[in-house]
Amino acid sequence: MNSEEFRRHGHDVIDWIADYLDNAERYPVMSRSKPGEIKALIPDSAPEIGEPMDTILEDFRRDILPGVTHWNHPRFFAYFPANNSAPSILGEMLSAGLGVNSMLWQTSPAATELEEKVMDWLGEMIGLPDGFHGVIQDTASTATMGALVCAREKATAFAVNAAGPAGLAGAGPLRIYASREAHSSVLKGAKIAGFGAENVVLVGIDENRAMDPADLEAKITTDLADGLIPCCVVATVGTTGCTAIDPLAAIGPVAKKHGLWFHVDAALAGSAAILPEMRWILDGVEQADSLVFNPHKWLLTNFDCSAYFVRDPEHLERTMSIHPEYLKTGRDREVNNYMDWGIPLGRRFRALKLWFVLRSYGAVRLREIIAGHIAFAREFAGWIDSAPDWERLAPVPVNTVCFRWKPAGMDEATLNTANAKLVDRVNADGTIYLTHTRLDDVFTIRLAVGQRATEREHVVTAWETLQKIAGEI
Amino acid sequence: MNSEEFRRHGHDVIDWIADYLDNAERYPVMSRSKPGEIKALIPDSAPEIGEPMDTILEDFRRDILPGVTHWNHPRFFAYFPANNSAPSILGEMLSAGLGVNSMLWQTSPAATELEEKVMDWLGEMIGLPDGFHGVIQDTASTATMGALVCAREKATAFAVNAAGPAGLAGAGPLRIYASREAHSSVLKGAKIAGFGAENVVLVGIDENRAMDPADLEAKITTDLADGLIPCCVVATVGTTGCTAIDPLAAIGPVAKKHGLWFHVDAALAGSAAILPEMRWILDGVEQADSLVFNPHKWLLTNFDCSAYFVRDPEHLERTMSIHPEYLKTGRDREVNNYMDWGIPLGRRFRALKLWFVLRSYGAVRLREIIAGHIAFAREFAGWIDSAPDWERLAPVPVNTVCFRWKPAGMDEATLNTANAKLVDRVNADGTIYLTHTRLDDVFTIRLAVGQRATEREHVVTAWETLQKIAGEI
Repeated sequence: MNSEEFRRHGHDVIDWIADYLDNAERYPVMSRSKPGEIKALIPDSAPEIGEPMDTILEDFRRDILPGVTHWNHPRFFAYFPANNSAPSILGEMLSAGLGVNSMLWQTSPAATELEEKVMDWLGEMIGLPDGFHGVIQDTASTATMGALVCAREKATAFAVNAAGPAGLAGAGPLRIYASREAHSSVLKGAKIAGFGAENVVLVGIDENRAMDPADLEAKITTDLADGLIPCCVVATVGTTGCTAIDPLAAIGPVAKKHGLWFHVDAALAGSAAILPEMRWILDGVEQADSLVFNPHKWLLTNFDCSAYFVRDPEHLERTMSIHPEYLKTGRDREVNNYMDWGIPLGRRFRALKLWFVLRSYGAVRLREIIAGHIAFAREFAGWIDSAPDWERLAPVPVNTVCFRWKPAGMDEATLNTANAKLVDRVNADGTIYLTHTRLDDVFTIRLAVGQRATEREHVVTAWETLQKIAGEI
Repeated sequence: MNSEEFRRHGHDVIDWIADYLDNAERYPVMSRSKPGEIKALIPDSAPEIGEPMDTILEDFRRDILPGVTHWNHPRFFAYFPANNSAPSILGEMLSAGLGVNSMLWQTSPAATELEEKVMDWLGEMIGLPDGFHGVIQDTASTATMGALVCAREKATAFAVNAAGPAGLAGAGPLRIYASREAHSSVLKGAKIAGFGAENVVLVGIDENRAMDPADLEAKITTDLADGLIPCCVVATVGTTGCTAIDPLAAIGPVAKKHGLWFHVDAALAGSAAILPEMRWILDGVEQADSLVFNPHKWLLTNFDCSAYFVRDPEHLERTMSIHPEYLKTGRDREVNNYMDWGIPLGRRFRALKLWFVLRSYGAVRLREIIAGHIAFAREFAGWIDSAPDWERLAPVPVNTVCFRWKPAGMDEATLNTANAKLVDRVNADGTIYLTHTRLDDVFTIRLAVGQRATEREHVVTAWETLQKIAGEI
């Protein structure tokens, strides 16, 4: 494809994206594709001879698009959002065009230095105290695993890093503490980093499903008595199930008392801390060793862009850094080489899209958007509270409402199957898309308000759709 | 930014990228920015009020661009390339516009199913036998770490996964074997996955710097006698230093005999296997448990796109998979949920750009481009061989020439400093960009020919530039 063809197809793709963003509402939110349907449309081998881009784009629209679940849809209320926005897409385009690898400062100084600055911007926006250093990771799962590895090395004075299990010789297993509402990435990270799933200790929760610091203390005490090695506590600010807010200010002193690494997983809710009235969710964060939150979830930045902050980069660098001759440069003592701050060696120029988003929207507008989502979620919670056949199942500290349909006279087992059926039918209908969890044994519908384009009218439609389809069951 | 503004700025950005790709040659390849220069241009805080995109784009061109090292430059001969291409950029744009998260099949069936198909295409293109299953990872570092974790779990019947070091109770440390020319990601992965750096056993090499299978056998035998647990062998097809090709056909039987996981790191050179005449580099791959190569290095696809193939996805899934209620769907038994095949939960729709590249170029044209790069590297090696003051330091099986300037009468120490100075001056000059390694104690200049736009004339210029600047020292 020559330069003129790229220009022509590029303009076409831009126009298509613009139309798509304007009209995402016209699609069913969840794809109606059946397993194997898309696969059947794709040949079994790559073509020998190149095909015209017009054909490829036509195939994209005809064959691929029906298999897309529309995360851009303003009536997307499932999981947590994965946002994008026009400025972020432009930043991502430039990053793709430049195609730089920012593994080392020297391999693109601007990529490293812009990352340092925009991460400082973000830290200030959510009210992090001075002394945290930021780096962009792909996901909160990866960042949390990185925190677990640092915790492991801190607890063993880098002995596991050096010698593996032999570094633990004579000592018991290393223990990780997280509430039983914590994200599955804690367990996954514990498995990958060699802690073992059995060494993830699930701490009890209070009536709001937030971690109970007294139970944390009790679990640590028991482990110490059993000769185990308390290593790390992961507090969650905004659990995936119901956005419970673990009390950092009360957890921090327990972590410090026992010398644990204190990691904060604020993947979704961290973005809410850009609002002064929501900053309480991070009260006590000054005691943390590390924190992650995802601008790609709720700060209008394209996936992937996960903001990881650490107090002391030394643990990261000592754990992750490898300096073979072929990666040495004359600048290594003067600069950050971010390859030493995470698992991958190669790194995209992700700071560019974040810079575009923060500058194009500005902090005031971003606060308005986040505040709007929170207000819509609370209004929806109010509708549930006022409706006789519906029940709210958790507080709504941020943007996610947990609830169920509860017609009179149904027993618990029937309620569970009825609500599962309701979610399936609602999603098949296509007007809205939402997902579920279980709180204890209760099948729970989640409505997460956080898509960039979601306005009050879309939440009204969600409520109407739920009532209408429940009425048909 | 409304839809009309996005269209206008999007067209501008496309035109800028088109001009940039046409004119990348006009820039010095390596950025001349000094540490702190870019940072000093960026304010300390995010703006409160949004700024016009025209201003942001102007700042990008004025402040950021001088800090970019141009991986798109046809005279980029450093490290290994990180390619992009016009079709790949278009695919990346659509992926950014759709903004889907392909963690689960249901969260965008097309993203999962297209990934399955294009990974099959790739496997066929490089001649992988049937029975491998592909998945896109961000980098070869991550994929190799995933292989190490699978090896660990296979060797311990999933005991580490479950119980951590206690799962190894009574057994010795788990050992990883890789040649001493293997990539630093093996050591890094071993540290992160809890093997310990000391348990990476560096296997001896032959005169071509390829792994010596007899030494592998000897090292394993010694470890067994010492009560250690041989676990994994990582063979490298195209080492980073000098693209040595470890002999898979001879390593495989050793791995099988001792029940080791056999991982192949073909990060760069794997792309060369799309040429029938180069397929020998993967001879013996049918014995491997896993293989990774990077279309984002040498197959014209934007970073990140690392192709990871496994024989038996069960180890990956049993190691990585976590199924909290909030991620369950009604389709989980019928489909691939790729969140279970890697560390991150969230995943971009990366198959799209790979599909665009493979279709737009077609296999024939891709083979021509790769064959061209290899031919240029061999021609450059010939010039070195014929020049009295220059010395080639390794064979050139693929695209990378290792050499040094060797004027008569210089001792080894002086040669090392003179060649280091030569690289620094050449890169400061800006006409070409290349990097170094050390082969044993010899400071070695590397010239890797693999940038999409590199033609013979650029390699000629590289040779002229080296001679000219050497003459000035």
